[in-house]
Amino acid sequence: MKSPALVIVGSIGIDHIETPTVKKTNLLGGSVSYACAAASFFTSPGMVGVVGDDFPESFLDLYRTFDVDMQGLQHAPGRTFSWSGVYEENMDNRQTVETVLGVFEQFEPTLPEGYQSAPFVLLGNMHPGLQLHLLNQITAPKFVMADTMDLWINITRDELLEVVGKVNMLTINESEARLLTDSLHLMDAAQQLLAMGPEYVLIKKGEHGSTLFGKNGVYIQPAFPLPMVNDPTGAGDTFAGAMMGYLTKANACDEANLRRAMLHGSVVASFGVEAFSLDGLIGLESADIDRRVQSLLDMMRVDA
Amino acid sequence: MKSPALVIVGSIGIDHIETPTVKKTNLLGGSVSYACAAASFFTSPGMVGVVGDDFPESFLDLYRTFDVDMQGLQHAPGRTFSWSGVYEENMDNRQTVETVLGVFEQFEPTLPEGYQSAPFVLLGNMHPGLQLHLLNQITAPKFVMADTMDLWINITRDELLEVVGKVNMLTINESEARLLTDSLHLMDAAQQLLAMGPEYVLIKKGEHGSTLFGKNGVYIQPAFPLPMVNDPTGAGDTFAGAMMGYLTKANACDEANLRRAMLHGSVVASFGVEAFSLDGLIGLESADIDRRVQSLLDMMRVDA
Repeated sequence: MKSPALVIVGSIGIDHIETPTVKKTNLLGGSVSYACAAASFFTSPGMVGVVGDDFPESFLDLYRTFDVDMQGLQHAPGRTFSWSGVYEENMDNRQTVETVLGVFEQFEPTLPEGYQSAPFVLLGNMHPGLQLHLLNQITAPKFVMADTMDLWINITRDELLEVVGKVNMLTINESEARLLTDSLHLMDAAQQLLAMGPEYVLIKKGEHGSTLFGKNGVYIQPAFPLPMVNDPTGAGDTFAGAMMGYLTKANACDEANLRRAMLHGSVVASFGVEAFSLDGLIGLESADIDRRVQSLLDMMRVDA
Repeated sequence: MKSPALVIVGSIGIDHIETPTVKKTNLLGGSVSYACAAASFFTSPGMVGVVGDDFPESFLDLYRTFDVDMQGLQHAPGRTFSWSGVYEENMDNRQTVETVLGVFEQFEPTLPEGYQSAPFVLLGNMHPGLQLHLLNQITAPKFVMADTMDLWINITRDELLEVVGKVNMLTINESEARLLTDSLHLMDAAQQLLAMGPEYVLIKKGEHGSTLFGKNGVYIQPAFPLPMVNDPTGAGDTFAGAMMGYLTKANACDEANLRRAMLHGSVVASFGVEAFSLDGLIGLESADIDRRVQSLLDMMRVDA
């Protein structure tokens, strides 16, 4: 049995997405799909998730093309988790039309034995009780990143705070950071979040990039500017997956590697949002990523 | 008679500002006030503007403390230009309560002789017809930057396009860039603006920084992150003034100097928004600016 050095847990979804120009149904989605595909450019990640009876075999084939380890993928009777959403004109905001939890609602996995010793772990956005259940099975974590969302801040704050206190990095967007801390000011919110326990807080700002807060200060990662975003769904998961993949490959989580991981996360996410579902990542080569990394570095360099 | 190497033209205003926490009246404002004060850390700028009978002597004293050349400052009978505005909860949006044009409405200055040969010129946000009137008096421009706003895009588009075609750099915010080009996509809007003639287009994004578009590519300048913004009024003018001051001191407008000028513009603007009116710039020393420049560079550096 293989023991992947990076384990990624999250939702596997079937998405129905409408943008101002296009409507697409029955897309492969979910945080773990995006994150595993993104991580696969750096390492072979172990996927932990659940699918229902309706999950197409072709999606499993797609995971295989990304060299994802599927020992942690469960099949359960019932419907696969599904999300339907509509993006507004400028793609900045989206409305959820419907969320069907399906088999994800009862998901409480026991990790495959080879996964429990994984040094790198990405806990996608899910019920914090489930995140704790998983954390308790990890025997020797080196770097654990957890994502969350406003829903859990509102309805399961105490459990979420327990998660925040046990992980190395919390990823969260601006409005969620303010919601979790009751602070209007981002710098202040970040400091309050750091005081809750994690070594690092990564604030996600979508097209405006992301900012890392830690004991060594602040790092500002601009997003790779694109002429056109076709589907921002999963951008944060793609970013997080690529970032964790980079750290796993480097087998390091010092500040310099974190910054380079964010740089690579931005770039892989930029490919992801150019197309629906995983289409922007399919067929992508390391050389494509390296070229865009160099291009983004040139845009960030003061001494041109 | 002195011949300042940088001439800055714009409004001189008396502002009344309300934020979620504070209300202040009779503040010194206007684009030229902010821009000249910001530029003064790098050069002694020549100020071109007009004030009315009601303009306090103490504000003129303040200009003098910033070593602003006031040969181009006119006094006219009537009220000084005045702006009243209210900032919303998150400081992102503001509503104009009242604008009194006053003596600024009839402003059509003849530049002092020593100003006409200035190599560096900043045309603040004003009627594009007035911007053209000024441009025509500049005999040997090396680098001219022009600012504008949605009002001029809507009511004087043709004259504005003439300005855009004659300057080296246009500064404009995101929504205005979209408005002027009918493009929803910022990269596309920037390319369309470049096709209108300027060498560079600088897109202002407030707390998200600014992005430079030019023939050599893109440069992304993050804003200096602040724990608290007390008054964002004039941030763009402060940025532009410091940027032009930096270029004037360097006597250069190549890409590397433009990038460093943006870095310094961001930093000086960050001091400006920490307090109302020019208060954040009063007493500021070059060493304070240099320290914050170094700090921002550390936040932008991938290899920490």
